[in-house]
Amino acid sequence: MSDVSLLAPAGFPQLGPIAGVRLGAFACGIRYTGRDDLMLAELAPGSAIAGVFTRSLTAGAPVGWCRECLAGGKVRGIVVNSGNSNTFTGRAGKEVVETTATTAARLLGCEPKQVFISSTGVIGEPPPADKIVAALPRIVPLLSADGWESAARAILTTDTFPKGATATAAIDGVEVRLSGLAKGSGMIAPDMATMLAYVFTDAALPPAVLQPLLAASADRSFNCITVDGDTSTSDTVLLCATQRAAHPPVADPSDPRLADFSRALDRVMIDLAQQIVRDGEGAEKFVTIEVTGAATERAARRIGLTIGNSPLVKTALSAGDPNWGRIVMAVGKAGEEVDPDRLSISIGGIQITAGGGPVPGYDETPVAEHMKGRDIKIAVDAGVARGKATVWTCDLTHGYIDINASYRS
Amino acid sequence: MSDVSLLAPAGFPQLGPIAGVRLGAFACGIRYTGRDDLMLAELAPGSAIAGVFTRSLTAGAPVGWCRECLAGGKVRGIVVNSGNSNTFTGRAGKEVVETTATTAARLLGCEPKQVFISSTGVIGEPPPADKIVAALPRIVPLLSADGWESAARAILTTDTFPKGATATAAIDGVEVRLSGLAKGSGMIAPDMATMLAYVFTDAALPPAVLQPLLAASADRSFNCITVDGDTSTSDTVLLCATQRAAHPPVADPSDPRLADFSRALDRVMIDLAQQIVRDGEGAEKFVTIEVTGAATERAARRIGLTIGNSPLVKTALSAGDPNWGRIVMAVGKAGEEVDPDRLSISIGGIQITAGGGPVPGYDETPVAEHMKGRDIKIAVDAGVARGKATVWTCDLTHGYIDINASYRS
Repeated sequence: MSDVSLLAPAGFPQLGPIAGVRLGAFACGIRYTGRDDLMLAELAPGSAIAGVFTRSLTAGAPVGWCRECLAGGKVRGIVVNSGNSNTFTGRAGKEVVETTATTAARLLGCEPKQVFISSTGVIGEPPPADKIVAALPRIVPLLSADGWESAARAILTTDTFPKGATATAAIDGVEVRLSGLAKGSGMIAPDMATMLAYVFTDAALPPAVLQPLLAASADRSFNCITVDGDTSTSDTVLLCATQRAAHPPVADPSDPRLADFSRALDRVMIDLAQQIVRDGEGAEKFVTIEVTGAATERAARRIGLTIGNSPLVKTALSAGDPNWGRIVMAVGKAGEEVDPDRLSISIGGIQITAGGGPVPGYDETPVAEHMKGRDIKIAVDAGVARGKATVWTCDLTHGYIDINASYRS
Repeated sequence: MSDVSLLAPAGFPQLGPIAGVRLGAFACGIRYTGRDDLMLAELAPGSAIAGVFTRSLTAGAPVGWCRECLAGGKVRGIVVNSGNSNTFTGRAGKEVVETTATTAARLLGCEPKQVFISSTGVIGEPPPADKIVAALPRIVPLLSADGWESAARAILTTDTFPKGATATAAIDGVEVRLSGLAKGSGMIAPDMATMLAYVFTDAALPPAVLQPLLAASADRSFNCITVDGDTSTSDTVLLCATQRAAHPPVADPSDPRLADFSRALDRVMIDLAQQIVRDGEGAEKFVTIEVTGAATERAARRIGLTIGNSPLVKTALSAGDPNWGRIVMAVGKAGEEVDPDRLSISIGGIQITAGGGPVPGYDETPVAEHMKGRDIKIAVDAGVARGKATVWTCDLTHGYIDINASYRS
């Protein structure tokens, strides 16, 4: 692991136990030496699951497996390895997934299709099934309700810090807990930096409720971050509910009794998503882009992501250059409706444009001052309607080139 | 002008006169000092014009003006300044365009709407109309049939070399000539690196023929290049025909007698487009991406551009790293149909993948050798149908960051 990101949080958060969840990690030597690279999460019988996955058309074998398993809605185990993404590995890669699931299922006493699998790392060579199969029985005795941080560390690749987040919520007056782990550094580098996230809760909610809540929350969190605009072949977010909490059943995802749970889920997901940006490859600045006044929420997100993906905006951010012309350019290229005469751009709370040009007497000094910091705020109003979204990104620095232009070895 | 790009051609080509075309350049001090920054091209009466422009929704005032003028189909003058893009400048910016066109029209003896205008440079402040108005009468005596290279130099911004190309063609047995100029360095940096191109011919073709030929040729040339995926607010390609050649009239753009002209137009446009990539900001490698087997031509181009825009592919190219997994990732994220089991990737003519994985016994050595060169060839077959396209790009280097993260001024 390289030097910890300048934008890292102070430390790994306190994640208490979630009833029905145990985690363990092990060093099985897939690619890394001297560190854990295999994580096993055990879920109590009856646990329900929801998932969202990469939209890549060359997704890895574990993603295909998870999609199949999701139909059953039940989960007893999650196995994640780092160092090898098991992508573009053909028949051999599928066999590694099946062998891993069968082995874990035997150890956990469940069906193979109740074992979800993720792999992150190099593309194009199947992972060593023998190492994983040999390691799994050795993790089982290590499983612990307090294994959060070691599990979070085992799934890292080019990340510089482990990522966790937690929240509580009330469902019909009964407290439930949510805790999650994530990895990712570079959104999303297929070589070594896929985005993976696992959120666990003791809530007693069925897959038909979990899935729409997860999809909506992903649109407000992981789908609102970008480091480099690249899309991994392995991106996976899973939400597991152990059914241990004592609240009454809730069968409708739009039931108002789920509002607090939904907010808590957003808090955990956004926290994890922001940590991924804070560990963006080479990142030196954390950038929040608030888009308002767009035609729709989706249009607002697209405008925000186009700004956040623009190499020209990101290099200006890196230099602390209040070059708002590049933001005008990015808004123009997003392909979403915008009224140039009403387009308003602010940086650090200071309005820069109005009426189709710079505001009269615009003084760059306080904007330049704001841009020297680590935490940059950009606000854009498209001047069209009421669609809004918030997007998070980082700057593009020499560090990004150093990390990604170094020869594999 | 910084050090000349490592990928620059040996020198500016010999561009002979085109009947009915004269060019001149002048240093009017808009932003640069000690170099020409204003170009005037004079076209003989009766000259026809076609144009294609940026798709940006925040396009600059000169682009709006050119779009209006295009309806008339006639051109007598083209005025281009560097150093200021006259974009996001509101009413004041439109007035600069109108004043410039009126002044040039009086000098050339034509209607203002027969004067086309481009501006390239900083966004957000109107260019100094007084400097342009004062300079125009001083360029007129300098107009010359041999003014190609000085005109090409006057329109440069962050470019490191002037760009020209020429070809001849026969229309119904009569020789016609085509010569063009372009600028651009960074596709497309709004701060200082818009893409502009002007192609002149003595062919006797009306706007109704020129426009579809230009649009089709742009799809095979300027629309197939990318440096950084950003879209300028000012991109403009104009094709002017002075009607001086003695071939019989051709009224139908699909007339087979135009096949040779169309090929020559492609040669000039592709040559200019490739020169822009060769002057890509920080570029150290020129990369040709040939996509075959896609669902359509458009799908092939989108796959090629997604590969060419991927920061991960471009940093691997910079390092000479045969990291073909990143190409698999980029193909997957393009959103176009692909058959992973038939996806074939070659670098430098060496096939790397087949049957859903690496070819048996794949040896990376000759691929790594090829990637040490300045001229990299990538071929991708999507395994779906017969759509094909060729895309040109460059690598992403520390030089790009240095150029774009340096503070303006």
